[in-house]
Amino acid sequence: MAGEFELIRRHFTRTAPAGMLGVGDDCALLAPSAEATAVSTDLLVEGRHFFPDVDPRALGHKSLAVNLSDLAAMGAKPTAFVLGLALPRADDAWLSAYAGGLFALADAHGCPLVGGDTTRSDAGTTLSITIFGSVPARAALRRSGARPGDDIWVSGMLGDADLALRLLLGEPEVPVADRAAVLAATRRALEWPEPRVALGLALRGLASAAIDISDGLLQDLGHILAASGCGARLCADDVPVSPAVAALPVPWRRRCALGGGDAYELCFTAPADARARVADAAARAGVAATRIGAVQAGAGLRVVDAGGNPVPDLPRAGFDHFPSTAGPAAGLLPETT
Amino acid sequence: MAGEFELIRRHFTRTAPAGMLGVGDDCALLAPSAEATAVSTDLLVEGRHFFPDVDPRALGHKSLAVNLSDLAAMGAKPTAFVLGLALPRADDAWLSAYAGGLFALADAHGCPLVGGDTTRSDAGTTLSITIFGSVPARAALRRSGARPGDDIWVSGMLGDADLALRLLLGEPEVPVADRAAVLAATRRALEWPEPRVALGLALRGLASAAIDISDGLLQDLGHILAASGCGARLCADDVPVSPAVAALPVPWRRRCALGGGDAYELCFTAPADARARVADAAARAGVAATRIGAVQAGAGLRVVDAGGNPVPDLPRAGFDHFPSTAGPAAGLLPETT
Repeated sequence: MAGEFELIRRHFTRTAPAGMLGVGDDCALLAPSAEATAVSTDLLVEGRHFFPDVDPRALGHKSLAVNLSDLAAMGAKPTAFVLGLALPRADDAWLSAYAGGLFALADAHGCPLVGGDTTRSDAGTTLSITIFGSVPARAALRRSGARPGDDIWVSGMLGDADLALRLLLGEPEVPVADRAAVLAATRRALEWPEPRVALGLALRGLASAAIDISDGLLQDLGHILAASGCGARLCADDVPVSPAVAALPVPWRRRCALGGGDAYELCFTAPADARARVADAAARAGVAATRIGAVQAGAGLRVVDAGGNPVPDLPRAGFDHFPSTAGPAAGLLPETT
Repeated sequence: MAGEFELIRRHFTRTAPAGMLGVGDDCALLAPSAEATAVSTDLLVEGRHFFPDVDPRALGHKSLAVNLSDLAAMGAKPTAFVLGLALPRADDAWLSAYAGGLFALADAHGCPLVGGDTTRSDAGTTLSITIFGSVPARAALRRSGARPGDDIWVSGMLGDADLALRLLLGEPEVPVADRAAVLAATRRALEWPEPRVALGLALRGLASAAIDISDGLLQDLGHILAASGCGARLCADDVPVSPAVAALPVPWRRRCALGGGDAYELCFTAPADARARVADAAARAGVAATRIGAVQAGAGLRVVDAGGNPVPDLPRAGFDHFPSTAGPAAGLLPETT
């Protein structure tokens, strides 16, 4: 087994692009920028955000994907990232697979690793990624720009990641007959989410507000509405879902699609007269975009079915890592960022 | 007990300075910069980098200080930071004290918190800070600029933090009579290190290379020499130490001063004809700077005593979090970054 510095060197040292100073000094140096630098940071904790036996390649992908998704939600172009690794042991095969998944996604987005920190942990693996992107400040997709009359859109399909997580957790009440087949159909959404970076860039100057769905559609849309001082009407039956989620009984379908976290799709708003341009932007980004409601004046999120009737028993509004009432420690749950 | 978002809001939401977008969107936005952006990231793990019962105010200070120290070693001016917190519970008093120590130092350096991530951990507290600074790329103090004939300098005094840590760990062999008195005299260096940001700025255009001492003088100076392709001669008895360390038997004094980590002083090199300007820069920064040796052509670090004789039994060259030989898990040990 090699020493720490040798392991870092072997798996994580890459040549920095021109204009940057990468791994190997007290700080990395990012090139001067005429645009604003978008910054997002995420902690991923074993047993909380991923299973101890997760495929390390998938973990490498996902740990960067959730950060790229934050850049996407801001309309920012990825420029670089730094990585913190707290590891219980130096496992060469694990590090190699983790780095493989990480760099494959980083390379696909032209987002080099420029620095990091590795330390030993006596209590499981913790990953910390801070990512940088570039966006003209006035083009950034903030949460606060939604206006009454705007359409509400969502990219991709919702619910698969939540359904897969429930099956992996062995929740007995999930109403599917062939659990293995449904898991096989949905697991990729949980473990290999595709950050919608190209869509975020295409929505610059077009979307009035945007957020990525990490905690569930209702909660994350709620953040847009709160920041924008608006309410909304959402048609639950318009929310796009996969065949696996569509096959669930209606309450379960809504639970996964409206409340399920870890989706990493974009929820965004745009003026109604921009529908054709939004559709064109989504097509250029290679992802579906579906209209699911409208921003309204006032407060409150009204969720209705296809017949316009209020939907009962909505999923709880997101997950709070520190519930205010005492209770048994939760198991593996979606993250809050 | 309040929920997570309420706790974050209460303790960690500050108004971002003009030109920045702070906590509350998918990303923070840093203003465009004509200079390079220096970036450093550190993970601090409970039981590894700090004791479970550490004063949370001191932890707040130190968790930011170690990152500011990386900026200092680069000659960068702090601009902002982001914070990741993995916590076993939401303890209002702990968070309040932690935030108090953190923001007191952040405010002293004009370095606002602009974003973060909070999550629950089932296994102790982990802190992740990524800090940003500003420096013209050509003025950055890199490790690679030392040249034969340059003086080697160190700021402040070395050894106190290492001695305090050994006493807190209860190492029985530390040869001090009044352990409580010595701990009282040295503990502040361990828990409240002062990052040498002003010195780093004053050394722009003056120092040929710099590093901050986190792993011990010999190891960190070794990084400068390796990056610069040089060797050096170091006079062990010229390394400045406090009265507490000076009172130790000589081998212990050298162990603490040459091998002790967590010092967060700057080790730097500068041309011999710049001695007066270095002294002036240190005086302006309000910290002592002491010449301790000279860079030489070739490889290797020769450590001698005041009489010019080689020093035997040098402290091991720094700590490797993942030793290549199996052994009992180490306890609390200095970090590697």
